[in-house]
Amino acid sequence: MIYLDNAATSHPKPESVYETVDNVLRNFSANPGRSGHKMAAEADRIIFEARESIAKLFGVEQSDHIVFTPNATGALNLAIQGMLDPGDHCITTTTEHNSVVRPLHFLSQCGVGVDKIRATPEGVIDPERFRRTINLRTKLIVMTHASNVLGTITPVAEIIRIAHEAGVPVLLDAAQTAGSVPINVAELGVDLLACPGHKGLYGPQGTGFLYIAPDVSLKPILFGGSGSRSDHQDMPDFLPDRYEAGTLNTPGIAGLGAGVEFLLATGVENIRKHEIRLCGKLLLGLSAIEGVRVFGVRDPSKRSSVVLFDIEGMDPAAVGDALDSDYEIAARVGLHCAPDAHKTIGTYPTGGVRLSPGYFNTEDDVDATLEAVRAISAGCLENSLVRRMQ
Amino acid sequence: MIYLDNAATSHPKPESVYETVDNVLRNFSANPGRSGHKMAAEADRIIFEARESIAKLFGVEQSDHIVFTPNATGALNLAIQGMLDPGDHCITTTTEHNSVVRPLHFLSQCGVGVDKIRATPEGVIDPERFRRTINLRTKLIVMTHASNVLGTITPVAEIIRIAHEAGVPVLLDAAQTAGSVPINVAELGVDLLACPGHKGLYGPQGTGFLYIAPDVSLKPILFGGSGSRSDHQDMPDFLPDRYEAGTLNTPGIAGLGAGVEFLLATGVENIRKHEIRLCGKLLLGLSAIEGVRVFGVRDPSKRSSVVLFDIEGMDPAAVGDALDSDYEIAARVGLHCAPDAHKTIGTYPTGGVRLSPGYFNTEDDVDATLEAVRAISAGCLENSLVRRMQ
Repeated sequence: MIYLDNAATSHPKPESVYETVDNVLRNFSANPGRSGHKMAAEADRIIFEARESIAKLFGVEQSDHIVFTPNATGALNLAIQGMLDPGDHCITTTTEHNSVVRPLHFLSQCGVGVDKIRATPEGVIDPERFRRTINLRTKLIVMTHASNVLGTITPVAEIIRIAHEAGVPVLLDAAQTAGSVPINVAELGVDLLACPGHKGLYGPQGTGFLYIAPDVSLKPILFGGSGSRSDHQDMPDFLPDRYEAGTLNTPGIAGLGAGVEFLLATGVENIRKHEIRLCGKLLLGLSAIEGVRVFGVRDPSKRSSVVLFDIEGMDPAAVGDALDSDYEIAARVGLHCAPDAHKTIGTYPTGGVRLSPGYFNTEDDVDATLEAVRAISAGCLENSLVRRMQ
Repeated sequence: MIYLDNAATSHPKPESVYETVDNVLRNFSANPGRSGHKMAAEADRIIFEARESIAKLFGVEQSDHIVFTPNATGALNLAIQGMLDPGDHCITTTTEHNSVVRPLHFLSQCGVGVDKIRATPEGVIDPERFRRTINLRTKLIVMTHASNVLGTITPVAEIIRIAHEAGVPVLLDAAQTAGSVPINVAELGVDLLACPGHKGLYGPQGTGFLYIAPDVSLKPILFGGSGSRSDHQDMPDFLPDRYEAGTLNTPGIAGLGAGVEFLLATGVENIRKHEIRLCGKLLLGLSAIEGVRVFGVRDPSKRSSVVLFDIEGMDPAAVGDALDSDYEIAARVGLHCAPDAHKTIGTYPTGGVRLSPGYFNTEDDVDATLEAVRAISAGCLENSLVRRMQ
């Protein structure tokens, strides 16, 4: 199988991730931060080390500002629901995933104002439009670092500068970039960073985190045991405990830590270079196939490792089926949980076919995929000619 | 090591749990319910099968009413926050874990009325007190099936009958009983059942679920991609998607499924018998040691597999340290995230020492533990005599 669905969940993981999850699950899965015995203390140490590795990768000074969540959606909900109150205003874009669209839609029904900055059909966003949309009630800007549909990278540094001039904090959804595009929160000045563990960070599903800058205060949205200040009915007032109610996913977080260690050893820059090479080849190759339409900006250095295309006269679902059934190529078709983005580029409601190569894909994988798309497109063209001649 | 902290996280797991997690993480961790390719479809099937196994174990008719959460705390928050609005009234008990105490405390600050039924110092609750406390605004009764401090089993059948006479739904926190005390939601008439995956169900940490009865409607509390109705900004209106925002923990849920399959093959009744035998032996043995005070009801068939004790003149933390350091026995000391329960029995704020045997513990483990407690208590007594003589 050629797996090109890394934008959903990365596969495979580094061997160390598998080994760590198995070892921790077998030997050290006591309750971290709860019981005081040796195995629980070891679980606690494992969680701490994963936090430290993540802090190192993202230029975070205090690792206790990394709050573990079950996925990026959990992190985004904590940031969005934790920050906004009725009467507040929030700015976002038209290239967001439903993990941002849906919490904001919920809050908009509770009296939060939401404005969406419209991207171009290539997914490009003009930072100046944020400046014009910020008002005195604006409490948060939420944006994806790269569209999960088009891959287009958002000019975050410029938007953060504009936001901070107006004193507005920025929540960055790094679902598509964490681990594959370098991010340094200190340099960028990101206030809140939401990341899944199971994509570019090579951790298992069931992991994710929110980085919360020291001067940002959020209401907790989940309440429960924290293993600390147990005699208080309020959640503790310190991080990360304030936002980590309930038993953490120790083996998963250990696996995420191993994934991040792999990234620290490999270098995100090197992963980025490899993925740009594969995406560039895909973009060029697909664009040259008759009947194939490729979306988004053409320069692979301006996108994350995602290429969306469709074939004229063919339902994207049928293209995905053919890739899967006839060529053992795993792609993702449809709306990718991001209807706004598809509306922006004109592919709503059928969506498109998304190929998302990862670090473990090869140029041969890309060649085989291009060959497959060429054959599927030719078959479609032929069928349509036959139909026209009948 | 003798692991007696199963009430926090069970250890070890059945071998099939380790093998399943590893196999699914290595081979089938694509996005369940999202992409359409074979590996994603297989991930989807794995999640479905785990749901079916859980439904079978708990007598649930429709497995889509099992909603996966990252832990019992996530399930309890969804049930409690999803059910109660300002102006509503809720009844709970004084033996609850902070996973119930803290969400209710938060809601009490938002205008939800909360009454706590007081347990006896042995943790026993009189069902009739619920009848007297229900009023026209009562929207929910929340109670633990067994105290995580004392083990005392709540007379749930009777309380549910009283609640239903008044049309009030019941949320059962089965953190201490799921997998080790038989629960049939259809027979009991439980409206909401919150379970951790990583305790008696032998799944890995990072798993849990909420069963939602067909006639119960909850507001979602987390919003995001569901892989369904992607073009709607609201969460889908069908279960389980309505409450499962974001990528699920496929390998963890697969492991939970394997744990539940182990329970179905072994029989919860047999696990219960074994744990009653071990607890009975612990209760008898501890009660016979000079200077040791044992809490809760004496009949092991009236408690879950939890025994709380302390040693006169010794801080519980010191007892736990001695068990861990000198005897390699893992216990849990302190307040166990349940300060209300300790206040009820008079062990607040120092707490006690909790031993929680599981199915994989043996009578030899109990003998060794009794021997260790005997030695620690004798040492403490001797020290105190020496001090008095000086």
